[in-house]
Amino acid sequence: MEELKKHFLKTRELSEKICQPLDLEDYVPQPMPDVSPPKWHLSHSTWFFEQFVLIPFDPNYKIFNTDFAFLFNSYYNNAGDRVLRPNRGLMSRPPVREVMAYRKYVTELVLKLMDRSDFSKEMHEVIVLGINHEQQHQELLVYDIKYILGNQPTFPVYGEYFGVKKEEHNAEFVKISEGVYEIGAYGDAFCFDNECGRHKVYIQDFEISNRLVSNGEYLEFIEAGGYSDFNLWLSEGWDFINNQKILAPLYWHSQGSEWFYYTLNGYEKVREELPVQHVSFYEALAFATWKGMRLPTEFEWEIAAGKFSWGQLWEWTYSAYLPYPGFQKAPGALGEYNGKFMINQNVLRGGSVATPEGHSRITYRNFFPAASRWLFSGIRLAK
Amino acid sequence: MEELKKHFLKTRELSEKICQPLDLEDYVPQPMPDVSPPKWHLSHSTWFFEQFVLIPFDPNYKIFNTDFAFLFNSYYNNAGDRVLRPNRGLMSRPPVREVMAYRKYVTELVLKLMDRSDFSKEMHEVIVLGINHEQQHQELLVYDIKYILGNQPTFPVYGEYFGVKKEEHNAEFVKISEGVYEIGAYGDAFCFDNECGRHKVYIQDFEISNRLVSNGEYLEFIEAGGYSDFNLWLSEGWDFINNQKILAPLYWHSQGSEWFYYTLNGYEKVREELPVQHVSFYEALAFATWKGMRLPTEFEWEIAAGKFSWGQLWEWTYSAYLPYPGFQKAPGALGEYNGKFMINQNVLRGGSVATPEGHSRITYRNFFPAASRWLFSGIRLAK
Amino acid sequence: MEELKKHFLKTRELSEKICQPLDLEDYVPQPMPDVSPPKWHLSHSTWFFEQFVLIPFDPNYKIFNTDFAFLFNSYYNNAGDRVLRPNRGLMSRPPVREVMAYRKYVTELVLKLMDRSDFSKEMHEVIVLGINHEQQHQELLVYDIKYILGNQPTFPVYGEYFGVKKEEHNAEFVKISEGVYEIGAYGDAFCFDNECGRHKVYIQDFEISNRLVSNGEYLEFIEAGGYSDFNLWLSEGWDFINNQKILAPLYWHSQGSEWFYYTLNGYEKVREELPVQHVSFYEALAFATWKGMRLPTEFEWEIAAGKFSWGQLWEWTYSAYLPYPGFQKAPGALGEYNGKFMINQNVLRGGSVATPEGHSRITYRNFFPAASRWLFSGIRLAK
Amino acid sequence: MEELKKHFLKTRELSEKICQPLDLEDYVPQPMPDVSPPKWHLSHSTWFFEQFVLIPFDPNYKIFNTDFAFLFNSYYNNAGDRVLRPNRGLMSRPPVREVMAYRKYVTELVLKLMDRSDFSKEMHEVIVLGINHEQQHQELLVYDIKYILGNQPTFPVYGEYFGVKKEEHNAEFVKISEGVYEIGAYGDAFCFDNECGRHKVYIQDFEISNRLVSNGEYLEFIEAGGYSDFNLWLSEGWDFINNQKILAPLYWHSQGSEWFYYTLNGYEKVREELPVQHVSFYEALAFATWKGMRLPTEFEWEIAAGKFSWGQLWEWTYSAYLPYPGFQKAPGALGEYNGKFMINQNVLRGGSVATPEGHSRITYRNFFPAASRWLFSGIRLAK
Repeated sequence: MEELKKHFLKTRELSEKICQPLDLEDYVPQPMPDVSPPKWHLSHSTWFFEQFVLIPFDPNYKIFNTDFAFLFNSYYNNAGDRVLRPNRGLMSRPPVREVMAYRKYVTELVLKLMDRSDFSKEMHEVIVLGINHEQQHQELLVYDIKYILGNQPTFPVYGEYFGVKKEEHNAEFVKISEGVYEIGAYGDAFCFDNECGRHKVYIQDFEISNRLVSNGEYLEFIEAGGYSDFNLWLSEGWDFINNQKILAPLYWHSQGSEWFYYTLNGYEKVREELPVQHVSFYEALAFATWKGMRLPTEFEWEIAAGKFSWGQLWEWTYSAYLPYPGFQKAPGALGEYNGKFMINQNVLRGGSVATPEGHSRITYRNFFPAASRWLFSGIRLAK
Repeated sequence: MEELKKHFLKTRELSEKICQPLDLEDYVPQPMPDVSPPKWHLSHSTWFFEQFVLIPFDPNYKIFNTDFAFLFNSYYNNAGDRVLRPNRGLMSRPPVREVMAYRKYVTELVLKLMDRSDFSKEMHEVIVLGINHEQQHQELLVYDIKYILGNQPTFPVYGEYFGVKKEEHNAEFVKISEGVYEIGAYGDAFCFDNECGRHKVYIQDFEISNRLVSNGEYLEFIEAGGYSDFNLWLSEGWDFINNQKILAPLYWHSQGSEWFYYTLNGYEKVREELPVQHVSFYEALAFATWKGMRLPTEFEWEIAAGKFSWGQLWEWTYSAYLPYPGFQKAPGALGEYNGKFMINQNVLRGGSVATPEGHSRITYRNFFPAASRWLFSGIRLAK
Repeated sequence: MEELKKHFLKTRELSEKICQPLDLEDYVPQPMPDVSPPKWHLSHSTWFFEQFVLIPFDPNYKIFNTDFAFLFNSYYNNAGDRVLRPNRGLMSRPPVREVMAYRKYVTELVLKLMDRSDFSKEMHEVIVLGINHEQQHQELLVYDIKYILGNQPTFPVYGEYFGVKKEEHNAEFVKISEGVYEIGAYGDAFCFDNECGRHKVYIQDFEISNRLVSNGEYLEFIEAGGYSDFNLWLSEGWDFINNQKILAPLYWHSQGSEWFYYTLNGYEKVREELPVQHVSFYEALAFATWKGMRLPTEFEWEIAAGKFSWGQLWEWTYSAYLPYPGFQKAPGALGEYNGKFMINQNVLRGGSVATPEGHSRITYRNFFPAASRWLFSGIRLAK
Repeated sequence: MEELKKHFLKTRELSEKICQPLDLEDYVPQPMPDVSPPKWHLSHSTWFFEQFVLIPFDPNYKIFNTDFAFLFNSYYNNAGDRVLRPNRGLMSRPPVREVMAYRKYVTELVLKLMDRSDFSKEMHEVIVLGINHEQQHQELLVYDIKYILGNQPTFPVYGEYFGVKKEEHNAEFVKISEGVYEIGAYGDAFCFDNECGRHKVYIQDFEISNRLVSNGEYLEFIEAGGYSDFNLWLSEGWDFINNQKILAPLYWHSQGSEWFYYTLNGYEKVREELPVQHVSFYEALAFATWKGMRLPTEFEWEIAAGKFSWGQLWEWTYSAYLPYPGFQKAPGALGEYNGKFMINQNVLRGGSVATPEGHSRITYRNFFPAASRWLFSGIRLAK
C-alpha cells in the first residue's frame, strides 16, 4: 500500500512539476485540435480519479465542482456530455489557481481512501489505471507545451529538459530468424487492455537496426530531394506534405542554407549527431524507402527489442493499431479507453525522453495517426 | 496641451480599468476570429502609439521590444508583416505583466513628447487619432470580454457595467420632410476620414421611431415564428440563420418555455422592457419587415437623430458602408484606417453603452458585416 | 397580342439557338456553384412559365412532369422545395431530349393561352415577366457555356458569337454638374421592381469616361505590378486575389512573356484594342485607384449614360445593390424575384454583347457579388 | 494467343455493354469525388493500354489525341500531370462518340500487336495487367452508375442486372483450428503485386459464418437503436455517422415505418431475405459488436473461404491494407499500382455480383477506406 501511495503521489507531483517553467498564460491556448491546454491536462487527469475512484468508492465524497465533469471529460461518452475537443482553448475558466485547488482536494481524498480498511483489489486496480492514465497525459503535456511554445513567434525557452542524446554505439543490424514467436503482455504487472492477450505470431527472417536514424542522415534525405520525389511516398503522404507545404520535420526552419529547429531549450542549429525527431509516419516510411529499406512491424520490434536500447523516441512501425486476438473491451466507461480507437492509426513502440519513468515496456502499444508530428517520434530501419 | 495630456492619460487608464475584473487567464483566448484576446487589444493600442507617434517623432526613442511590431500590428500592410488574425489566441507570450510594462513605457514617453518645445500640429493630430483608435478598441474589448465570458460553460460574472436601460419616454414616430439635406462632419473637431466631406443628399419623406425595439417586442417576433418564415428574410440572412441554427439573438438560451440570456452581470431571465441587443443586420431587417416597416438609411438617421435620444446601442441602417463623394485615403499606413473596408459592410449609427465617453457623434459611421452579432447592436424602425 | 406572341416565341427560340453549337455532353456539368448546366437553364425558364402562367391561368393545364417543380425551381421558397444549387450538375436526368419536349409542350400551351378570349392584363404581365426572366437566363447561359468550355483542358471553340469590338471614338471625359436629378424607371414599358420608383437624388460635380478600359490599358496595370501592391486594393479584394492566386482577368493565361485568353471563338493572344472583360469589382476598383480615378456610382452612370455609348459589357459601379425609396416586394413567389438579394452585391449598369436585344435600358440594375468574374463585366472610369 | 485475344476483346466489350442502358447525359456527372463519370472509366481504361502497351511496344503507334494523356491519367505520377480527381465531372469534352472512337482505335491496335512475330512475354504480361485493370474499372463503373442514378431525384431504372440473391443454405459457423497457415497467391496464374509473396501466418482458433448478414438481420440492429448507441462504434465511426447523419445503409430511405431502397432495378421496399449491402466498415463492425461477435481478419477469411460460398458482396475484414512480407513495388509507373495506397484502408475479401467473371480469387485483396459505402460491400461474422 505504501508503494502505491508513493507511486500515486509522485505521479501527481510530476504533472505539476512539468508545468513549473510556464507562465500562467501558457496554460490556456490550444494552437491545434490535437493539442490540449496544460490547464486541461491538469484538470482532466484529476477528473479521472474523481470520476472513477472517488465517486464510485468513497460514499462520503463531496464533488469539488459539478461543472467539472462537463469541462474535463475527454471522450468517455458513458460519463456524460463534454466540451468539444477543439474548444478546450476557449475555456479561460476555471483559472489555474482553482485547478490547483481541485488537484490538491482530489489527491488528498484518494490518499485517504487508500487508508481505508475496506480498500479492495478493484480500488487498487482503478488507482493504478489512474496513475498510468495521468502518466500518459504527462507525456502529452510535454508534447503540447513544446507545441504551444514552439508556435510563439518569439520561441521562448522552457529549459534543459526532455532533450535527446547521441547514440554512441556502433551501427549494426540485428538479425532475427523466421519462426513462431509470442507477442503481448504476460505476468502480473499492470498492462493496458490493448497489449494483453499473449499469443503466437509467425515471423519471417528480418534485420533491424540497433540505432535510430540521426538528424544528419535525415538531412541527406532532404538534400537529395526526398520531399519532392513522389516515388518515395504513400499517396496519402504525398498529398499531406504538399497540402501542408512540409519540407522538413516539425519545428525545423531553414535560414539561408542552414537548418535550425526549436527545442525546449530554445531555437538552435540542427545537431546532426542526434536522433531525428518529430517526423510523421509518412516521412519515416519515405525515408526508409529512399534508403532501400523499410520500417519494422510492431511484432518484429517486440521480438527484437531485447537486443538494442530504446526509449529516446517512439518508433513508427508499419503496423496498424488493431485488436489482438481475443481482445475484449471492459464494460462501461473504462471500456472506452483503447478499443474504440482501433482504426486508421499506426502503432509506435518503445518510449521517449518524455515518457514518465517506468511507464513504458517492451509490449507497450502507443498509437497515433500517420500524419502526427508533434509527438516525440523517431525512425528505426528494418530490412 | 494639458487637455490633450489629460485626454490621453484618461484613455490609457480606461483600457486597463475595463480589464480589471478579469482573471489573468481571460486575457488569452480567442473564441472566434472576430474576437481578439484582451491582451492583444492592450498591446495593439500601445503599438499604434509606438509605431505612429514615438518612432516617427521621438528621435531618441528606443523600441521596447522589436518582436512586438510583428505581434501587435492588426492590418497595416504598410507597417510590415503580422500575425494572422485567427492566430491571436495562440500567443500566450508576452505575458500580461510584460504587456503592462509595455503600456507604461509607451504612455510615459508619449506624455514626455507632449512637453517638447517642437511639439507640432501633426504630432497633435496623430496622438488624437491614437486616442480615438484606442477608444475604438476599448469598445471592442467590452464586446470581446463579453464573448469570452459568455462562452464559458459556467457563465461567470464580470460586473454591473455596460448594461442597457429601459427607455422611459412614449413611443412616437418623428416625421421628416422631403428635400436636400447636408450630411457629413463639419467644423474643427476630430473626425474620421470616412465621415468627412460634408455634402448634400436628397431625401424623400420618412418617419423614424424615437425608441429602440425592446426585448418584449422582439420576443413577439420570435413567438410569431419570425425565424422560420423565409418571406421575412434576405436570402443571405435566411441561409445564415439556418446554417448557424440561429433562433434568437446572441447570448439567448431557451429553457423550457422561457428565455434567458447572458449579460456581463451574469445569466438571467430576459428583461422584456430593455432594448433588444446582439442582433445581426439580417435579424434587424427581418424584424422590421415583419412589422411592415423598414430600417432607416444612414442619411435618414443623421438628419433625424437630433430629434430623439440615441447611444445605448449601435443602430443598424440599410446603408452600405461606401465612400462619401470626394473621399481620399491618407497616404501611407494611416490611409489603411478606413477606406479599404468599404465593401460588403453595413453602417451602424449612434453609439452604445460600451462607447467611451465623447467618442461618438451624430456624423459617426460605424460599420460591421451584416452577420455580426457580438457587437452592441440594436434596432430602430423607420417607415 | 401578335406582338407579344412574336416576342415570346422569339425569346423561346433564342434559348435553344444559344445551345446549338454545344455537344450533348456540354449541357450537363456545373463547374462551380455559380454556374448552372445549360440543361438547367432551358428547363428552369420553362418551369417559370409553367409555374406562374399555365398552372394559375390555364384551368385545363396538365402538368408535364410532376418531378420538374422540384428539379427546376431556382430559389422560390414560396414555390416549394428544390434541388440545392451546387447539385444541379449531378442531374443527368431528365435527358436533353425530354427537356426539349418540355419546352415545346409549354411554349405551345402558352401560345394557346394568348388566344383565349379572357386573356387578362395580369396574364399579359406575367408572360412579359417570364420573357424578361428567360432573357436574363439567356445571358447567364452564355456566361455559363463560356465557363464550361473555357474550363475544358482542350479549350473547344463555340463560334464567332458574343465577341466585343474595339471602341473607335476618341477618349473623352463627359462632365456633369452638381444638382438634383431623377433616377429610376418611368413610363409604361416593362421594368423590374428594383428599378421602379422614380425619385430624386442629389449629385456632386463629376466626370465620366466615354470609353471602356481596354485590354491594353489593363495590361499596363498588370505590368506595373498592380496585382501585388496592396495599397490599390480593398482589404477583401486583396485577400480574394491572394487566396485565389489571381494575377489577371478570368480566362487569361500567361505563356512566357505573353498573355493569351480563352474566347468563345477559341484560345488566342490577348487583343489589346478590345475592352477588358471578366474582371471582378475588386479588380475594377484597384485599376481605377491605380489610375488616380474611381468608379462611378450607379446614379452618376444613369445620369450620364445618355452621353456615351454603352452595352458591350456590364459596368461595375461603386454602388451597393439596395432598395430604392418606397421599394415594395410583390406578394407571393414573384416577390422573391429581386428584393431578397439586396445585400452584399454591387450594381452593374449598361448591358453586354450577351444581353438579348431589347432587354436592357438606361435604368436597368444588374447586380453581382464583388468577386464575380465569369459575367461579361468591364470598367468605365469616373473622377 | 487466341485465348488472350478473346479475353482482351471480351473485356473491352463488357465495359461498353455495362454503359448501354445509360442516357448520354449519364456519362458525364461526378456526384462525389470517389465517383468517376462513366465516360472517364471508358477513356481511362483505354489510356492504360495506350500508355503501357502501345506507346512502349508499337514503334509505329500514332497517338490518338495528345490531350488524352492529361485527361485520363488517374494517379500515375510517373506518367505525367493529370486532371485533379474531383474535376473529372467538369469535362464534357471529349464527347462520348469520340471516347468510343478512341476505344475502337486502341482495341484494334492492341489486337494487331498480338499478331506480331516478336510478341514477347513482357507484352503479354502488360496486356493481362491491362485486362485486369479494366475489369477493376468495370466494377467501379457499376458502383458509379448506381451512385449517379441513385442520386437522381427521380430514381431511374437501369435494369435487372447486378442484383444479389437470397442465400438458401442453413446458417452455420465453420470452425478452424489454431496453427500455422499459408497466405498469399501461388502458382502461375495472374495475381496483383499486393497478394503475391506466399508466406506463413499463425492463426488462433476461430469460427466464421457460412452466410452473409441479411437485410432482415440488419433491420433488427437498426430497430434496436444500433445507430444511436455509441458503445457499439469505433470513435471515428461514431463521428462519421453523426456528421453525415447516417441512420441506415446507403440508398435506404425511410417512409413512415417502412424502409425502401434504390436498386439498379428501381426504388422498392427493402427485401429482408437478401444480404445487406452498402455498409461502411464502421457499420459492419458496429453490427458485429451488437451481435457479440466480430469481423474476421483477412487471413482468417482466406484460410476458411474454401468452406463457404462467397462472391455476392465484398466482405469487410478487420485487417488494415498493409504490405505482405517482402513486398516490392515494380519500377516505374506500374509500381504505383497498389503499394502507395497501403495506409488507412481496410481489406475486403471475396468478390461481388459486379465483379467481372474470373476476376477475383481466394487470395485477392480489395481495399477501401472504412467510411466507403458506395461499393458492393457486405458483412460476414466471425467469433
